[in-house]
Amino acid sequence: MKRYAYFISDGTGITAETLGNSLLSQFEQINFDCTTLPYIDSEEKALRAVEEINALAGRSGEAVIVFDTIVDKNIRKIIDSANAFKVDIFSAFLAPLEGELAVKSSYTVGKSHSPADSDNYIARIEAVNFALDNDDGARTRHYDDADVILVGVSRCGKTPTSLYMAMQFGIKAANYPLTEEDMHDLRLPDSLSKHKHKLFGLTIDPDRLAAIRNERRANSRYASLKQCYHEVDEVEFLFEREKIPFVSTTDKSIEEISTRIMADTGLKRRLQS
Amino acid sequence: MKRYAYFISDGTGITAETLGNSLLSQFEQINFDCTTLPYIDSEEKALRAVEEINALAGRSGEAVIVFDTIVDKNIRKIIDSANAFKVDIFSAFLAPLEGELAVKSSYTVGKSHSPADSDNYIARIEAVNFALDNDDGARTRHYDDADVILVGVSRCGKTPTSLYMAMQFGIKAANYPLTEEDMHDLRLPDSLSKHKHKLFGLTIDPDRLAAIRNERRANSRYASLKQCYHEVDEVEFLFEREKIPFVSTTDKSIEEISTRIMADTGLKRRLQS
Repeated sequence: MKRYAYFISDGTGITAETLGNSLLSQFEQINFDCTTLPYIDSEEKALRAVEEINALAGRSGEAVIVFDTIVDKNIRKIIDSANAFKVDIFSAFLAPLEGELAVKSSYTVGKSHSPADSDNYIARIEAVNFALDNDDGARTRHYDDADVILVGVSRCGKTPTSLYMAMQFGIKAANYPLTEEDMHDLRLPDSLSKHKHKLFGLTIDPDRLAAIRNERRANSRYASLKQCYHEVDEVEFLFEREKIPFVSTTDKSIEEISTRIMADTGLKRRLQS
Repeated sequence: MKRYAYFISDGTGITAETLGNSLLSQFEQINFDCTTLPYIDSEEKALRAVEEINALAGRSGEAVIVFDTIVDKNIRKIIDSANAFKVDIFSAFLAPLEGELAVKSSYTVGKSHSPADSDNYIARIEAVNFALDNDDGARTRHYDDADVILVGVSRCGKTPTSLYMAMQFGIKAANYPLTEEDMHDLRLPDSLSKHKHKLFGLTIDPDRLAAIRNERRANSRYASLKQCYHEVDEVEFLFEREKIPFVSTTDKSIEEISTRIMADTGLKRRLQS
């Protein structure tokens, strides 16, 4: 079974999209075809969105599911006129919150809320730059400034995780690839042992690792199952011996890996989202 | 006025956090102190969360605002017992959606939805690697594979934007820093003019640019107001002359810049979120 869904917003659409996807993922039997329409901030754009939705509803014979977070009353009225089943995110929750907080929301008075502040922006860019500068063991002399140092075998997910933590939380995450040499020495490299309390390990299922490495270097020794099993074994042994906390990245999204590290380390986000 | 808010989830907490922040940002008069509690997946963890919330409510003399997306009935019941004003995201919307879609949700049957699939993971990692490999004009020979090539002066936001687009949308975004030489030639470098239809410009307020550059290299010519004004003038002139679409990054979050580029170019996300 297939249904169409739209996420409509006068801003980025991220709230409508995130909540919409979460709710729709609860209906596993249905295959949703989703479209996000951000920046619907004029009546013309709203009318065009309604035309698009009505055409789809006409062709499919079923109402389109619409999640929206539009503030402007006139634009909302236009969206409301579509042949759609509407999930009105803001109005469902703002009235009760207004009661509890005993103030009117910007939404009720028709004012859009203001976007990200500039402190946030600079903190975030700094964290992203930190992740880039300290990626893949490139430099270890900035580890004093790191909030966390991710360690693990090549291609287990360190780089995207460190970038995600920088982008979403403003966390300075360095990362260091553990090689065979590191593991054969039976001790952590000096650059890491000095910062042992900041280390967090990533591991991965060896079959999955081989599949990922094959995307990069097909049929290499590096991507062979034998090599992947060997490296993962060694690294997990190292984590246990050194009592480095670790998480498996297998079957986890970058969001899950990152939030898990935040929860396990007790790190606090440095950005207001 | 200050109030405490909690975002509680048995998963990453991203849905509760995103919706909660959006709703709370509608109450500009109130200063919210927010905490996210992800992975509340056992009764013990739920009881500890309730203790924490009740202690805060007791000290502040006001109910804590709680946004939650917990699926398990027993865990929910514990969270419901806290001294809190609860915004129950799933139950508010799932019942009406079940009616419209004529099926029961996983939530109702008490089953947690499954996490990210592996195709998504690999597409995302590939896009992040593409952004890293093609950052800052490092290489131009892969531009055939790029979905978009971001151009602009140094420190206008190209790198974090290209990484965000990779991470959130699976879009392959290269980026190329326009230097004074590029602009004085009065023509685009060959590596860019071949891919003119993929170019998207970023610009920035020169005062803001100077502030950002000063964080990196204080009191340099590079960070001087005069230099920043000059470069921004030239680059905006170039964008207009070459009819390259562009957006200002000033006062915009990375999310806003990225979603604006998606909307203006008509690019479609390559990831299901």
